[in-house]
Amino acid sequence: MHATADRPLNVVVWSENRHEQLEPHVAGLYPDGMHNAIKSGIEENLGARAVVTTALLDDPEHGLTEERLAQTDVLTWWGHAAHSEVSDEVVDRVHRHVLAGMGLVVLHSGHWSKIFTKLMGTSCTLRWRSERDRELVWTVDPTHPIAQGVPHPIEIPQQEMYGEFFDVPKPDEIIFISSFTGGEVFRSGITYRRGHGRIFYFSPGDQDFPVYHHKDVRRVIANGVEWVATDRPERAVPVLLRYEQGDFFTGHGYGGPLSDAARAAAGNAE
Amino acid sequence: MHATADRPLNVVVWSENRHEQLEPHVAGLYPDGMHNAIKSGIEENLGARAVVTTALLDDPEHGLTEERLAQTDVLTWWGHAAHSEVSDEVVDRVHRHVLAGMGLVVLHSGHWSKIFTKLMGTSCTLRWRSERDRELVWTVDPTHPIAQGVPHPIEIPQQEMYGEFFDVPKPDEIIFISSFTGGEVFRSGITYRRGHGRIFYFSPGDQDFPVYHHKDVRRVIANGVEWVATDRPERAVPVLLRYEQGDFFTGHGYGGPLSDAARAAAGNAE
Amino acid sequence: MHATADRPLNVVVWSENRHEQLEPHVAGLYPDGMHNAIKSGIEENLGARAVVTTALLDDPEHGLTEERLAQTDVLTWWGHAAHSEVSDEVVDRVHRHVLAGMGLVVLHSGHWSKIFTKLMGTSCTLRWRSERDRELVWTVDPTHPIAQGVPHPIEIPQQEMYGEFFDVPKPDEIIFISSFTGGEVFRSGITYRRGHGRIFYFSPGDQDFPVYHHKDVRRVIANGVEWVATDRPERAVPVLLRYEQGDFFTGHGYGGPLSDAARAAAGNAE
Amino acid sequence: MHATADRPLNVVVWSENRHEQLEPHVAGLYPDGMHNAIKSGIEENLGARAVVTTALLDDPEHGLTEERLAQTDVLTWWGHAAHSEVSDEVVDRVHRHVLAGMGLVVLHSGHWSKIFTKLMGTSCTLRWRSERDRELVWTVDPTHPIAQGVPHPIEIPQQEMYGEFFDVPKPDEIIFISSFTGGEVFRSGITYRRGHGRIFYFSPGDQDFPVYHHKDVRRVIANGVEWVATDRPERAVPVLLRYEQGDFFTGHGYGGPLSDAARAAAGNAE
Repeated sequence: MHATADRPLNVVVWSENRHEQLEPHVAGLYPDGMHNAIKSGIEENLGARAVVTTALLDDPEHGLTEERLAQTDVLTWWGHAAHSEVSDEVVDRVHRHVLAGMGLVVLHSGHWSKIFTKLMGTSCTLRWRSERDRELVWTVDPTHPIAQGVPHPIEIPQQEMYGEFFDVPKPDEIIFISSFTGGEVFRSGITYRRGHGRIFYFSPGDQDFPVYHHKDVRRVIANGVEWVATDRPERAVPVLLRYEQGDFFTGHGYGGPLSDAARAAAGNAE
Repeated sequence: MHATADRPLNVVVWSENRHEQLEPHVAGLYPDGMHNAIKSGIEENLGARAVVTTALLDDPEHGLTEERLAQTDVLTWWGHAAHSEVSDEVVDRVHRHVLAGMGLVVLHSGHWSKIFTKLMGTSCTLRWRSERDRELVWTVDPTHPIAQGVPHPIEIPQQEMYGEFFDVPKPDEIIFISSFTGGEVFRSGITYRRGHGRIFYFSPGDQDFPVYHHKDVRRVIANGVEWVATDRPERAVPVLLRYEQGDFFTGHGYGGPLSDAARAAAGNAE
Repeated sequence: MHATADRPLNVVVWSENRHEQLEPHVAGLYPDGMHNAIKSGIEENLGARAVVTTALLDDPEHGLTEERLAQTDVLTWWGHAAHSEVSDEVVDRVHRHVLAGMGLVVLHSGHWSKIFTKLMGTSCTLRWRSERDRELVWTVDPTHPIAQGVPHPIEIPQQEMYGEFFDVPKPDEIIFISSFTGGEVFRSGITYRRGHGRIFYFSPGDQDFPVYHHKDVRRVIANGVEWVATDRPERAVPVLLRYEQGDFFTGHGYGGPLSDAARAAAGNAE
Repeated sequence: MHATADRPLNVVVWSENRHEQLEPHVAGLYPDGMHNAIKSGIEENLGARAVVTTALLDDPEHGLTEERLAQTDVLTWWGHAAHSEVSDEVVDRVHRHVLAGMGLVVLHSGHWSKIFTKLMGTSCTLRWRSERDRELVWTVDPTHPIAQGVPHPIEIPQQEMYGEFFDVPKPDEIIFISSFTGGEVFRSGITYRRGHGRIFYFSPGDQDFPVYHHKDVRRVIANGVEWVATDRPERAVPVLLRYEQGDFFTGHGYGGPLSDAARAAAGNAE
């Protein structure tokens, strides 16, 4: 059904890769880095339907050059300790590509990344606690493609707690709602459309727990990767254009908000 | 029903006030400025329920100081030719107040303002034509408070055409859909919640036509002003806090994403 | 803001009143019947803004005559053991009044009532357990009028568990999400618009626990009563009418789907 | 991506087939019946991905036996003059299959069919006029799979006008909004989820105009057929079950709302 159905999806797994360097227990859980755990989870579910590579904060331009993004169908994003180190230029570039049609899967602590807050327009804050709560992930949209192939609920033995109020725009779709041992709830699997792009946010996943090795979590992420991949054949940011009456297909350029005379007057006034 | 029910709403009508200075035909339509036409429309509908003042681009800090915003229940925004002249600092300030609970009514060409695009996260582009199309504004959410007291449809004899695709997030509510002489359609009255704030975007209104003197348009804007005013008693931006298990009401500070040991290691590494 | 702002809302609290008659422990919790507990909760919150009466299954026409419904701004509905005893004729009558603009608040086990399932079009099934779970009711739409004046979360010490998947249409708004001791979650406060009417479903409340004496639950129900009351001045079911081109305000009658000639031919064919 | 991806979709095109028998101009436009026009439009777009058959009102059980529905992935529905002749038993059967996961595409005047109004819970009324208006179908959800492969807008030279207010529940997704020569607007392509089933309503299409021969209309219907086909492997209506604490996967039967003692008391009381 995808425009891309005749070729594999190009998926880039982005990660900051800092906890794995700085915290031995994280390195123990993810000896190849969280990015490679996420990558292998996608590969194990999508097989030949995806070609998955990784990009890291410390790569030149964070591994997200214009050329690479132009060939990326879906980008997944994990960040936590180093959100502020991501350059605004790269964030603007990723933002532009999402509006143009690149799919985006934002994972766990990526809720506070520059790219996610820029796309949401809100604070993206929440309540949290890292104390080995059990997380149960319940499906509330059972026909959604992202919810296929996982039990109801998904059980995650130990997880960081993320709780409401989660300050995000009303989701287009709420697929999963989680509860935690402490009784908190969280809209843990939600979708958004922005421009010509689709976004899936999925909260399960943390550096302190082996969540990205969890079979069901891996399946959901892979489902999300397929779902955010656009069906549109072209990659283009929406633009503001003038259309003459009766001609619905030939937009032309925007000359600015003022008439020539007004521009001249404004110029004289300066 | 409002927390503010026992006192009038403080409403600030913001406008860039440039076309009126530069274009005689605009000055002819709006001899007191568009801001005063908008202001009088709110006053004629809300009477003693609102105290309305104006603020302009050329005022110090655009008339939007921290002190003034802190006392503003609802801000309305009209801009067009000078979006880029609005300082980023003021935009950040308004954004923070919206997330904290200030209501925002964005009018017409304000769709491309810095504050609206920041809150939306999208390009906010559309198709347009200024050729005296008739606009019909149809109600598709008849129980919505903003739709009360106006005919179905509202008829606006001459208007700028705004057409789809309008690149905004899926609205929380679509109240009005417009058609134009040329056959274009537009989601012309839409709402969003962001943080603790409410937003109403209403597209009818233009500097080249006397739309802000139109009885029904004035009623809708006044309805919107009342609807975006929050019922919450306090003004506060959502924050990220840690909550211990079993204590749902005492969040405490966020110490950062890394453990002390990891921070030390990171420091040593630099 | 209500069309009815100049007079109190007429609120009818409907209940089947069977458990109270048949089960001593229910009678012990609700010696005046659950309906009177619900009624007093609305009165204590709305005061002079509402006039509240009750209607019971065993009343003639279940207490819901055409005349009474025509004067009712808001109907609240509690049923459980006797859903099937509600006459289809009364259900159709209530349905018509909701589409015409009467507000409806459906409580707890009313999820499986004839009127709610008719309005929803789905099975309205869920998972449940009555084992004294603690219910926590979290607000996920903090600017909603129905969420005002209650803590986040509301704590209900003992409650029946209602869990997902709750087979209802996607809510227009999700205001509350609950968790239970057992880890289940539930969309416990949700709204719908149907025709010219508004509906609020709120799940906390059960015959086996004193939930309708809970201060916060009473506040939410009262908030819901005010929110579902329509702002529209007239009470009318939407109708299918023909409108000639250029006349937007004078619909006329529908003569049926076939031309006169076709009707004649169809008649001959019979 | 479909559970059915390894076999073609079983699609049944249902139609009342009355206008074609009774009105010569309709027979002229659709010499093989509207159902065969709809069928060929799906076949021309889906090719080997679908096996399409037809079922008619005058077939035994309207062609919709339990056995046939059980093997149907997607049902499309066109009715107009004979809605009332569809048996309630068959409507209940189709309703049950939709809740269990069968996809449903409702076309044009099917908005007033028994099955659609039962699924919606509203009057499903609208404004209309059959006077050769031009219809323009604009895409407002450009990433939606149903919107792929058609121009923006779709132009239909002559069509019946359907206008707002369309009394349906708030759609899960609004994909298309139409305008008409007379200036009316209509939410012409909308989706709903009900139970485990998906529904797509698409209004373009009429017996008096050759709309089902229109290339783009045929593409949209075919897209809709693929979109409503479920990804879920099993076909099952949601049920109400009790779940013990700690056992999330073994629901058991519902014994009724009253305790044994209460049932006995109720029995004695009768």
